[in-house]
Amino acid sequence: MTMNRTVRLARRPQGLPPADTWAIADEPVPQPGEGEVLVRVKAISLDPAMRGWINEGRSYIPPVAIGEVMRAGAVGEVAESRHPDFAPGDAVAGGFGVQRFAVARALDLERIDLRVADWPTWLGVLGMPGMTAYFGLLDVGALKDGETVVVSAAAGAVGGLVGQIAKIHGCRVVGIAGGPDKCRHVVETLGFDACIDYRKGDLVRRLAAAVPDGLDIYFDNVGGETLEAAISLLRRGARVVICGAISGYNDFTKITGPRNYLNLLVQRARMEGFIVFDYAGRYPEAKRQIAEWLRAGRVTAKEDVQHGIDRFPEVLNMLYTSRNFGKLVLVP
Amino acid sequence: MTMNRTVRLARRPQGLPPADTWAIADEPVPQPGEGEVLVRVKAISLDPAMRGWINEGRSYIPPVAIGEVMRAGAVGEVAESRHPDFAPGDAVAGGFGVQRFAVARALDLERIDLRVADWPTWLGVLGMPGMTAYFGLLDVGALKDGETVVVSAAAGAVGGLVGQIAKIHGCRVVGIAGGPDKCRHVVETLGFDACIDYRKGDLVRRLAAAVPDGLDIYFDNVGGETLEAAISLLRRGARVVICGAISGYNDFTKITGPRNYLNLLVQRARMEGFIVFDYAGRYPEAKRQIAEWLRAGRVTAKEDVQHGIDRFPEVLNMLYTSRNFGKLVLVP
Repeated sequence: MTMNRTVRLARRPQGLPPADTWAIADEPVPQPGEGEVLVRVKAISLDPAMRGWINEGRSYIPPVAIGEVMRAGAVGEVAESRHPDFAPGDAVAGGFGVQRFAVARALDLERIDLRVADWPTWLGVLGMPGMTAYFGLLDVGALKDGETVVVSAAAGAVGGLVGQIAKIHGCRVVGIAGGPDKCRHVVETLGFDACIDYRKGDLVRRLAAAVPDGLDIYFDNVGGETLEAAISLLRRGARVVICGAISGYNDFTKITGPRNYLNLLVQRARMEGFIVFDYAGRYPEAKRQIAEWLRAGRVTAKEDVQHGIDRFPEVLNMLYTSRNFGKLVLVP
Repeated sequence: MTMNRTVRLARRPQGLPPADTWAIADEPVPQPGEGEVLVRVKAISLDPAMRGWINEGRSYIPPVAIGEVMRAGAVGEVAESRHPDFAPGDAVAGGFGVQRFAVARALDLERIDLRVADWPTWLGVLGMPGMTAYFGLLDVGALKDGETVVVSAAAGAVGGLVGQIAKIHGCRVVGIAGGPDKCRHVVETLGFDACIDYRKGDLVRRLAAAVPDGLDIYFDNVGGETLEAAISLLRRGARVVICGAISGYNDFTKITGPRNYLNLLVQRARMEGFIVFDYAGRYPEAKRQIAEWLRAGRVTAKEDVQHGIDRFPEVLNMLYTSRNFGKLVLVP
């Protein structure tokens, strides 16, 4: 008999989560109730925000409880259905968690179209990172054609799409990423105008040279010194979009605020945070648009697909050590 | 023959400006050219921003040069006119600087009406601080009726009016000020709902108790720990209006950024700076409205009027040591 393999939260970690944060085990495959379906998980999304979800205390959503299956967005195939709208073989997305089989309510499922893109892409530019890039740049950032846009973690799932959307809008786009391979990808494949390798140091000076007239939008995924460097280069009326601060996720006590935040005053600029879930009602609009760009070859999707549910602990930590390259996806 | 007495910038200070920052001297009264007027200065506005104007390096306006008369907004009476629109005795406002007589171009003058309010009030709620409070709260802060508003430096020229305008809009308003006298004034005279004396310590806990459901707008004049305390109490969709950061003006190296700025993300909040000069085209609208509130007794103006141009160095420093009480004005 087929078993379900699950990754549950065993304890709350300090810093970078060690392997014993997680309990990996085989369990009976759960049975769907009335109105539910059983999903065979094909690919699991690994996201920076996961580190926050396993801390104690409520943030924008409650933490994952000890003993609970680790929360994760995922895509999969319906294996068994007790709802008339779904049949075995249907491709769906949902919050299936880090496991091989999940039971989900039919009304929580979203259908995905594998003719548009393969499983991992539905977790990348057509999934949460795509939604984050789209609404963060266009709505929160209020992008205008021809502006100068800087984005950190530019080789990542969100950053890579932010820059590509900005290019579609005729912007000058400068990425910040770690290492020559990522920087080459960002410029050559994603089409950014330039990419700064933050590992080479001297970020402020090199970023200033790349945006000699300053920047209109800084899309921040990392926080820390990178955020400060960008704030020093704001143009009049600039917007800083706070999407995340991965540099501080494993030690919140080390998070520093931007010491030069008064430049917001000098430049009549704003810094604004957002949570992509607030835009759920508009996901279909964003997905249609991104799918169209994909088909037209105006957006390139890049996923970093890792295999084996047992490798979840180490694969997750790739995010926090800057070792993934593109949207990180685990095939369980 | 009458002489002009001037305060010129002698050197760029470190920290709180010592007396030898300034050169005070008698000079011949300047002569107006064609299209200009000579103004006898009646009252000079002393503002926190002055500390920034005497630092080297361009901020939102160029610094005052060494040897230049110190920049200041002021009000006065036309003593001599070489422009048909102005006659001796007319009451005017302009950037007259710290001196007893000033020559100004007629087109840079604004007429003031002494039947509406006396000289000092035209530097307070009807002057730059009034404009700052009005546009900062209503435009940048996008105040909505019934919200919860927190304002620092609540006994000051800007803060006091911010709170009163918010009360007119049916808001719950909590001030932060230094010492029991100021706090009493803020509640009893200005009509705030509460005022926290930051000198008593434990600001976060006491502010949290005063706004148990969090705050919608924080109007920041001070920066530092007060800003951080307010950010910890943001409600969903809150706005932090960055008006100033007087706590850091005398030592920019000590300015810290708010370590909890990621709460902007959790609460989908924004932090935005502004410069009141950008609203110059709308000053008449704001002055009409504030004058109406003054007449109706819905706004109380409080100025701290000091006398003697020779006392400029010490009077200015009252701002940075929290010793003024209301809009600080110098009668030269």
